[in-house]
Amino acid sequence: MDSHPCDLVIEAGWVIPVEPHGVALESHAVAVDDGRILAVLPIAEARARYAPRQRVELPDSALLPGFVNAHTHNPMTLLRGVADDLPLMQWLTGHIWPIEAAVLGPRFCADGAELAVVEMLRGGTTCCNENYFFPDAIGAVYARLGFRCRLGLPVIEFPTPWARTRDEYFEKAQEVHDGFIGHARVSTAFAPHAPYTVSDAGFERIRMLSDQLDLPVHCHVHETAQEVEDSLREHGQRPLARLQRLGLVNRHLIAVHMTQLTEAEIALCAEQGVSVVHCPESNLKLASGFSPVEALRRAGVNLALGTDGCASNNDLDMIGEMRTAALLAKAVAQDAAALDAASVLRMATLDAARALDLDTRIGSIEPGKQADLAAIRLDDPETQPLYDPIAQVVYAAGRHQVHWVWIDGEARLRERGLVGMDVAGVLARAREWRERIARLPRAS
Amino acid sequence: MDSHPCDLVIEAGWVIPVEPHGVALESHAVAVDDGRILAVLPIAEARARYAPRQRVELPDSALLPGFVNAHTHNPMTLLRGVADDLPLMQWLTGHIWPIEAAVLGPRFCADGAELAVVEMLRGGTTCCNENYFFPDAIGAVYARLGFRCRLGLPVIEFPTPWARTRDEYFEKAQEVHDGFIGHARVSTAFAPHAPYTVSDAGFERIRMLSDQLDLPVHCHVHETAQEVEDSLREHGQRPLARLQRLGLVNRHLIAVHMTQLTEAEIALCAEQGVSVVHCPESNLKLASGFSPVEALRRAGVNLALGTDGCASNNDLDMIGEMRTAALLAKAVAQDAAALDAASVLRMATLDAARALDLDTRIGSIEPGKQADLAAIRLDDPETQPLYDPIAQVVYAAGRHQVHWVWIDGEARLRERGLVGMDVAGVLARAREWRERIARLPRAS
Repeated sequence: MDSHPCDLVIEAGWVIPVEPHGVALESHAVAVDDGRILAVLPIAEARARYAPRQRVELPDSALLPGFVNAHTHNPMTLLRGVADDLPLMQWLTGHIWPIEAAVLGPRFCADGAELAVVEMLRGGTTCCNENYFFPDAIGAVYARLGFRCRLGLPVIEFPTPWARTRDEYFEKAQEVHDGFIGHARVSTAFAPHAPYTVSDAGFERIRMLSDQLDLPVHCHVHETAQEVEDSLREHGQRPLARLQRLGLVNRHLIAVHMTQLTEAEIALCAEQGVSVVHCPESNLKLASGFSPVEALRRAGVNLALGTDGCASNNDLDMIGEMRTAALLAKAVAQDAAALDAASVLRMATLDAARALDLDTRIGSIEPGKQADLAAIRLDDPETQPLYDPIAQVVYAAGRHQVHWVWIDGEARLRERGLVGMDVAGVLARAREWRERIARLPRAS
Repeated sequence: MDSHPCDLVIEAGWVIPVEPHGVALESHAVAVDDGRILAVLPIAEARARYAPRQRVELPDSALLPGFVNAHTHNPMTLLRGVADDLPLMQWLTGHIWPIEAAVLGPRFCADGAELAVVEMLRGGTTCCNENYFFPDAIGAVYARLGFRCRLGLPVIEFPTPWARTRDEYFEKAQEVHDGFIGHARVSTAFAPHAPYTVSDAGFERIRMLSDQLDLPVHCHVHETAQEVEDSLREHGQRPLARLQRLGLVNRHLIAVHMTQLTEAEIALCAEQGVSVVHCPESNLKLASGFSPVEALRRAGVNLALGTDGCASNNDLDMIGEMRTAALLAKAVAQDAAALDAASVLRMATLDAARALDLDTRIGSIEPGKQADLAAIRLDDPETQPLYDPIAQVVYAAGRHQVHWVWIDGEARLRERGLVGMDVAGVLARAREWRERIARLPRAS
């Protein structure tokens, strides 16, 4: 049999493809060419069939699809730990908003996004669903660094340094969207902030544009009980019912948080193909509530996992978030068998990609998909002995055990070293922002 | 001013002494001599005052008291991930118990404890509250490795490979206790398994002996609602009321889990000086329930933190456990200000030492205490920018950022390298146990 040339073969102790579900293929290899996965096959077969330009041998690692972080505000990485352990409104009005008012601009957003890319790559994340102001500046960072993302186009009904009026938000959204048409890694989504900060007119316009442009709509929905109560008082409807009336409850909707849900709302999300993004650590830290994740899963709702921003988490660690999600779901469902390791891994990869409408291209290790991959060492004492690689990744591994990451088949993390990034510069800029922000007047 | 000779001065970016509470002392040093802390003082003063035989400069690290893991079953580290995502009784009867029946013995316990010491030291833990069979074998490992612990003397009313009858459990307990009298690092505690596995007669005997020997009593209490219901049916009392009737609700009691508590029970624990060990990840993973941690804290109950065993966690990571505890407490209390970072750090150090009746010797960085210390790097991208060192340790750091650990002033982890341990041997034995355990017949 002839050997076929290809760019890369990665040999791993275990390949966890995510699709098929719940499988860890021992001593398997992934062949990659021109950024795409050619084949997943036993190592011996791969050695016979392919003549790769590069071979990476990782006998102690599990190879997984890169994580897809389905809800981030990445510039807020610069606000990591700036104000913790505070009641929600005091946190927002006394700290986060005054700081944002002082620093929000393209420099802050670009520097924060770049720090976030460093953290995401070092933790095995290869794609994110971004949601912040100055998407032009953020998108430019992702494009320059070759990081894959859905870039949120913010819409909110009050003036910010990004835009002053509803019309200006939409004009700028269109402009940013147009700038990334056809881009290989950066695509866009509408990002109306939340039902309580966007008017019916705003949502109607988003609905029309999302249909025209075939774009997802990324929105915080039912984050807290307060939000639901306020909406009942103001609109006579729960937020999800209002979004349904406005035509937004459909396969485009990426509904983030969703801690408050009735059985009928869960059924509605399943029927209409809504994706729900679960952000357990943020929900816990802000005391927002417990999302009924296992009930959503059993109803067939597409579930994705997100970290939220670093001001409410305080990290972009998808391995830690998987663990929190899997543990918490069991206690909430009162069932130790709820949200098993393979299912939460799916939420962090393939089903997150599906939420972002990118699942035909990424999210699993299957021939034809882009080679967005992460290798996690399992030979540290903390992950020994090893009975079940999927459970070990979810329940025992740490993100520092991620030691190789590829996007489109290009190595971005190589034996823990970031490839082609000025990490010292990124950290120096983070420290400069820290000096400036720490001096700002704030509530005590 | 003359320079005083001493063994060691550690200079840190921040010293977090835990006592006083909530303080991070910038650019401070800790002077150590003969295993004890001499002084905590600014680096410049330390340089003027001391002539140490060794100086360790850690300008990017926070120096903390070593973590005290207040509830472990460390030999079970060999069962990490052997059976996850299963309902409690299926997990116990179909997996854990059959495996234990096949492997339980001094070799298994010693090998598991040694693997646990590797993991604990690499994560900044310097003391544990051990609770497993064959305490003779486990205690010998801790003594040989110089690891500090309260060694549980198990009492359970059914035969195990450790002992067959109630009398034999007590005879062996006395024998193990006698063997460690006066030991510098290993002391003992009674470890009756739980109210539902120990008779009134057993508890009465423990109460008498714990008074005589001044030993803590380490017991699973109110782990699940089922336990409480069963006790009401069998004894006509909730387990805590039964323990009170038997005279065990006092300052000796280390009550682990406590997910089911009335206001009166919380008040009782506060009045009687009971210590409660919170094991949030185990409680979540086994769907045991939510401990009312913030209510216990506000009532003035001494609260400690524990990981539980690796079969239900699946790690011995006290940094991760602090984060889970702090996040979860907020959602359970519906208050984002509940269980702040400084308070959960105290649960993992000084208040855990207090639970173990070791707080006069360890748990904080204060002159006169033993120098059990852990240094955590905060210069990784994941812990930058840095606004608040305590919040950063709890909410953003990972245990892999622990890079130095001392017990009694002796370096046990030096720049991530374990000192004087045969890690390769430990891992080889873990793999041998894995081969044997993976072949055992179990429920599918």
